[in-house]
Amino acid sequence: MTAENFSFKIVKKDSKTGARAGILRTSHGEIETPAFVTVGTQATVKALTPEELKGLGAQIVLANTYHLYLRPGEEVIEKMGGLGKFMNWDGPTMTDSGGFQVFSLGFGIEHGVGKIASIFPSEEFADKPKEARPKLAKIDEDGATFTSHIDGSTRRLTPEKSIEIQQKLGADIILAFDECTSPLHDYEYTKNALARTHRWAERSLKAKTNPKQALFGIVQGGEYEDLRKESANFISSLGFDGFAIGGSLGKSKEDMHKVLEWTNSILPEEKPRHLLGIGRPEDIFEGVERGVDMFDCVMPTRLARNGTLLLGLGRIDITNARFAADPNPPDKSCRCYTCSNYSRAYLNHLFKAKEILGHRLASIHNLYFIVNLVKQIRQSITEDRFLEFKKEFLRSG
Amino acid sequence: MTAENFSFKIVKKDSKTGARAGILRTSHGEIETPAFVTVGTQATVKALTPEELKGLGAQIVLANTYHLYLRPGEEVIEKMGGLGKFMNWDGPTMTDSGGFQVFSLGFGIEHGVGKIASIFPSEEFADKPKEARPKLAKIDEDGATFTSHIDGSTRRLTPEKSIEIQQKLGADIILAFDECTSPLHDYEYTKNALARTHRWAERSLKAKTNPKQALFGIVQGGEYEDLRKESANFISSLGFDGFAIGGSLGKSKEDMHKVLEWTNSILPEEKPRHLLGIGRPEDIFEGVERGVDMFDCVMPTRLARNGTLLLGLGRIDITNARFAADPNPPDKSCRCYTCSNYSRAYLNHLFKAKEILGHRLASIHNLYFIVNLVKQIRQSITEDRFLEFKKEFLRSG
Repeated sequence: MTAENFSFKIVKKDSKTGARAGILRTSHGEIETPAFVTVGTQATVKALTPEELKGLGAQIVLANTYHLYLRPGEEVIEKMGGLGKFMNWDGPTMTDSGGFQVFSLGFGIEHGVGKIASIFPSEEFADKPKEARPKLAKIDEDGATFTSHIDGSTRRLTPEKSIEIQQKLGADIILAFDECTSPLHDYEYTKNALARTHRWAERSLKAKTNPKQALFGIVQGGEYEDLRKESANFISSLGFDGFAIGGSLGKSKEDMHKVLEWTNSILPEEKPRHLLGIGRPEDIFEGVERGVDMFDCVMPTRLARNGTLLLGLGRIDITNARFAADPNPPDKSCRCYTCSNYSRAYLNHLFKAKEILGHRLASIHNLYFIVNLVKQIRQSITEDRFLEFKKEFLRSG
Repeated sequence: MTAENFSFKIVKKDSKTGARAGILRTSHGEIETPAFVTVGTQATVKALTPEELKGLGAQIVLANTYHLYLRPGEEVIEKMGGLGKFMNWDGPTMTDSGGFQVFSLGFGIEHGVGKIASIFPSEEFADKPKEARPKLAKIDEDGATFTSHIDGSTRRLTPEKSIEIQQKLGADIILAFDECTSPLHDYEYTKNALARTHRWAERSLKAKTNPKQALFGIVQGGEYEDLRKESANFISSLGFDGFAIGGSLGKSKEDMHKVLEWTNSILPEEKPRHLLGIGRPEDIFEGVERGVDMFDCVMPTRLARNGTLLLGLGRIDITNARFAADPNPPDKSCRCYTCSNYSRAYLNHLFKAKEILGHRLASIHNLYFIVNLVKQIRQSITEDRFLEFKKEFLRSG
């Protein structure tokens, strides 16, 4: 069952926690884990070239099945030689299955929430009454029907269709089609959805025919201990090449930590574990501590577009007038291209003048920051000083 | 009078035309002429880094006094070490004087025209009745009062103020403050404006105190032979380090050619000549043929933002559906970063998905195209085959 040219090796386990440093091998190169996966939703990491991604230390790009299915279409990307060739990225790639986007169009909007209720409210709809929240996706036993955000057309994804699309996109790692649940879903809904997700996991595995792609199963079950454990056990039993932890992570950081502990205590140690859509520094530390190997999140580039720069645990809004004549780099201790060459005053000017270069420079800094934080975490694991590094960072940050 | 570290040397004159190849030396490096000056209006060549500019062959960046005066203000840029340091460009820089922007806010809008009536209609206002065209600038003997396009505040530029700002911006080459006239201005208005521009030229020279900056005088006079010749003679007599040809170039390409012939037959051969705001391939050939050394134009980056790519004398709209699955590079014969690494299909996708990388890749191609066309023109002059190259390009283009 294991994909060709795909392997995962743990090179060092932390003596005090579940943290581990590994090497994930793919047809397009190695990924040192823990790793932050840069998100290139539409086959481009927003505002950046592949060379810039390499330059800031990125190892792998995650693109989005839902988005690429709608535009430009998987046939075009297949004709162009697959996702990596299409976007001129010769390193490892992965695609998600579209499950989360379907959730976002459906319950994500209806419930006005993102992955964690208290942390990621879906800004656009959170304050609106329930009846003003359109539900743009509908789940049935066989799959999901949804409304395209591009042209309003009705489209459909099933496990088989998602895998078919992902095989045409051709990423090194692909994901099973799943149903995400919301932090506002009750036990009953979550339990039924989980059973369906498990049937979809089996169908996803069966649909996959390309031996060169690794397929990760997705553990769901919301914030419910028995469901998460049931899911970790079931998904572990099916022969996936690795695992992703998806869906609702509860209503608080503490909920998320518990979900990770329940799940990773069951998932087989020798296979890689990806925590979907989580990327704040403090969450990454907590995830690594509980045995997570990979993270992805749009946060660094999304913040960058608004002029928010990551600094330790804090952030600065570079558009603030107090930076208008500040000759210092955004972060004096940062070695990224942006901080090595530009002042806060220049970034402030670029954002005020709505110049694209501002987005670029902020994106480079934010991605460098998070990718290299995870690299430093890895280094601390190999030197058996993970908890010291965590304490040091969280104190100074 | 001549600026320190500034010199111009003609290394080759074409035997059949007025074309010449030269070397312009500045404190920040040499510029091989004829040269296309890349426009960085707001202290950034839109969407690109300085490294990308170097990579595509750019030699010099032109920024805009009007824009930088309003935002971030010349004091900020002076504090940051000047324009070049502010934007991280270590090569030669120049600034225009603000005269053209004042014209754009005033008669440019009122007359609904750009530099040449038939070619560059001011799109926004050309079809509107005269009374619907706001006039946002007013000229008097001492200077110009105008309305800021950013905050609607009333601001003022005079020759002394423009030079003061340009000295704080600190570019290697700065321009005298002038009044542009419109192709729709009659002889009488143009004559009076010219006399004022000449008085402003003397005041600009007198105001300049920084010996490290070269100051170019601007020849005006619209499409009127006696006025252009009078202006070329007068401006030549004042001791400028070089010359720019500005204002209305008439109502047709033929008018522009005549203006260039009248002017350059009088301007001293040993000093550099810059044709302001002109940058189409065919116009560059005609300008070089008539002794122009430098060109600047926002056209390549402006077109790029709309997805229009330059190809020879033609253009393609990369957003067109016929490119959606086209695996070819934008231009098979082009060696730019974009054409070396990406397909038309990918660019088509990026523009449809409104991804910033699309703007970047199109800007790199268009600037590479025009910068390198001018480099090839220079090469043809040094090999004494300028007219052959021109014929070849215009035929194949």
